[in-house]
Amino acid sequence: MLNEKMYRLGSARSEIRELFEYGRARKAEIGEENVHDFSLGNPSVPCPDEVSDAMAKLIKEVDPVSLHGYTSAQGDVKVREAIANDIAKRYGVKVCKDDLYLTVGAAAALTCALTALVCPGEEVILLAPFFPEYKVFVERTGAAVSIVMCDEESFEPNAENLRKAINEKTAAVIINSPNNPTGAVYSEECIRAVAKVLEECSNEIGHPIYLIADEPYRELVYDGISVPFIPSYYTNTVVCYSYSKSLSIPGERIGYCLVNPEANDSQRIYAAICGAGRALGFVCAPSLLQKVIPHCLGITSDISVYDENRQLLLTKLTDYGYKAVEPKGAFYLFIKSPIPDAKLFSEIAKKHELLLVPSDSFGYPGYLRISYCVKTEQIERALPAFREAINDALRGDKQ
Amino acid sequence: MLNEKMYRLGSARSEIRELFEYGRARKAEIGEENVHDFSLGNPSVPCPDEVSDAMAKLIKEVDPVSLHGYTSAQGDVKVREAIANDIAKRYGVKVCKDDLYLTVGAAAALTCALTALVCPGEEVILLAPFFPEYKVFVERTGAAVSIVMCDEESFEPNAENLRKAINEKTAAVIINSPNNPTGAVYSEECIRAVAKVLEECSNEIGHPIYLIADEPYRELVYDGISVPFIPSYYTNTVVCYSYSKSLSIPGERIGYCLVNPEANDSQRIYAAICGAGRALGFVCAPSLLQKVIPHCLGITSDISVYDENRQLLLTKLTDYGYKAVEPKGAFYLFIKSPIPDAKLFSEIAKKHELLLVPSDSFGYPGYLRISYCVKTEQIERALPAFREAINDALRGDKQ
Repeated sequence: MLNEKMYRLGSARSEIRELFEYGRARKAEIGEENVHDFSLGNPSVPCPDEVSDAMAKLIKEVDPVSLHGYTSAQGDVKVREAIANDIAKRYGVKVCKDDLYLTVGAAAALTCALTALVCPGEEVILLAPFFPEYKVFVERTGAAVSIVMCDEESFEPNAENLRKAINEKTAAVIINSPNNPTGAVYSEECIRAVAKVLEECSNEIGHPIYLIADEPYRELVYDGISVPFIPSYYTNTVVCYSYSKSLSIPGERIGYCLVNPEANDSQRIYAAICGAGRALGFVCAPSLLQKVIPHCLGITSDISVYDENRQLLLTKLTDYGYKAVEPKGAFYLFIKSPIPDAKLFSEIAKKHELLLVPSDSFGYPGYLRISYCVKTEQIERALPAFREAINDALRGDKQ
Repeated sequence: MLNEKMYRLGSARSEIRELFEYGRARKAEIGEENVHDFSLGNPSVPCPDEVSDAMAKLIKEVDPVSLHGYTSAQGDVKVREAIANDIAKRYGVKVCKDDLYLTVGAAAALTCALTALVCPGEEVILLAPFFPEYKVFVERTGAAVSIVMCDEESFEPNAENLRKAINEKTAAVIINSPNNPTGAVYSEECIRAVAKVLEECSNEIGHPIYLIADEPYRELVYDGISVPFIPSYYTNTVVCYSYSKSLSIPGERIGYCLVNPEANDSQRIYAAICGAGRALGFVCAPSLLQKVIPHCLGITSDISVYDENRQLLLTKLTDYGYKAVEPKGAFYLFIKSPIPDAKLFSEIAKKHELLLVPSDSFGYPGYLRISYCVKTEQIERALPAFREAINDALRGDKQ
């Protein structure tokens, strides 16, 4: 009599995981260096020394009863103060400890924010292409997903399409910049346009539409580009952040929800997030990791490898005939499938031991995601397979 | 337009937290040593050296990309293997890695198990007195709570009362031994009787009733008593375990769900738990802590202080006229309120700077919970307050 929805979620792996597991089996068969696996967004560079040093120091010097004890549910006071001060300084905003709720990573931040802000029967807008787990998180709350396609060239959200999708049931929009899977970083102009539509529509429908900004890739940007701080453009914003990618500690599960103190009813939103965390079974974020964060504020893993990979892939793949927009952030390259059916192209690529995630589960068919958070040598080794795969596909297409 | 249920959960603290926060404020006013705070179940003894040593060694010796990277959602394979072997050896059962799903502590294990096993509109039976958060966890799934009172002398569940509460909507029963708040450890006889009722009723109503065994206090027992391993008595059991109390690391959030491999459809249950973990936003349990566990299997914090506290409290409080059943496990003493209204007695105790949680929110009025996971000196200092409080209450009662 179990919950069949949960059974289905647990027995059908995500398309990304499916490909990753295929790759794992294939590597065991023919050797790791012969499989060109670009399926997972798992950071390939180590955490900065500051992370390991802080951990070692805390374990050595702090009373274990306090170090490993429960913190308050919203997170250790001093940790929240340190993070709030850092945010305030970097973005020139007034943020304090009581606007921050520490979470077990960004996924938990998202499920807490969604559970707090959304009621069964409402709608949450996703901007396609989107991280597939958003759909799982939204639907678990009893709300429905509504999809708005991004513009094809820029992969930025189109404000007027967004306006058309909003109705009285719209509770929230999830925005993700730097973006997974496209690597797009939304421009200030784009964010202003989105904010304007949300404000106007909130007034029209008579209740606030919340903007949930999922920002695990905030620090992973290239060419010195800056990422607009969304709460400065739209008041009813909750930022979901994670240190997984910036500090290369994705398994440690540490992140936060930041409720914009300027939001309508910001204190009520904050309380609802605390309530959601309690109901979902998050007692507090892991305590040692909480206490590591103040030692690593403003520090990011060395992402020069990602940048090198990005440029190498972009140059070579364009040479081979692939079409891609230059990613400005994150560690994903989103290429147009050389043939209309991206799933079919993914299968063709597999024949060359090349593992690329087709974009269908991202809500945007016809593309493939390349996770380039790998060693540069892996890309160099994979280049012939990229060339052969497109040639194969185009040959097949002509026949 | 937020979710009002979550707002209420986040704005109204639990009675335990409320008292704890009162104590914190009071300590700031009159000095920590003058407040006798027995409100929280926060371990007061440090983690065993093996925990700190394993952490330090892993940080020093293991490649950080692997140490802090994502593990598979159900937990690192080698960690699950080590835990499964330990369980198999200790309880003489066949358990393997694929029966274990590592979680972000026992609360997460409970919310994952409940989300997997229970559907909206069904009922979950709680055995009162029970840990108040069970109600929050159950109600979030959309199921209703049904309460069965334990016997007053033993604080063991009464199988016949349990039978009366079961109907076609009954999906699961939560059982918690060693028990919070009573310290009772359910006897083998009691568990056999519960199992018999559940089997008979499952047959009658035509679907399995799951037993969810919440066991964070499994290792905290006194006088050499043994805790029956529930899956050996009832097949459709999921054990929710946490290392919070046994290793004194409650802030680190590491535990597991164990699906009895003998359960009907055990693989489907396991998949549903994986699905629930995914939907609730638990990507994996914290990776460093996962990898610490194999180094600490079979090890428990030094609980001799708890035992000393238990005996001291029991002797002295009985002398003063309190009535309590000897706790056999956990670190709670459950005393009968000297006057019928336990909340009123808690207020009287507060006048003596003595913080005891009234049992109303545990679903069993007329008692108070004393958390004795404190330094023994705190108990010694508190004894006069215990004496004065009961005298005060009884005097008031006679007037």
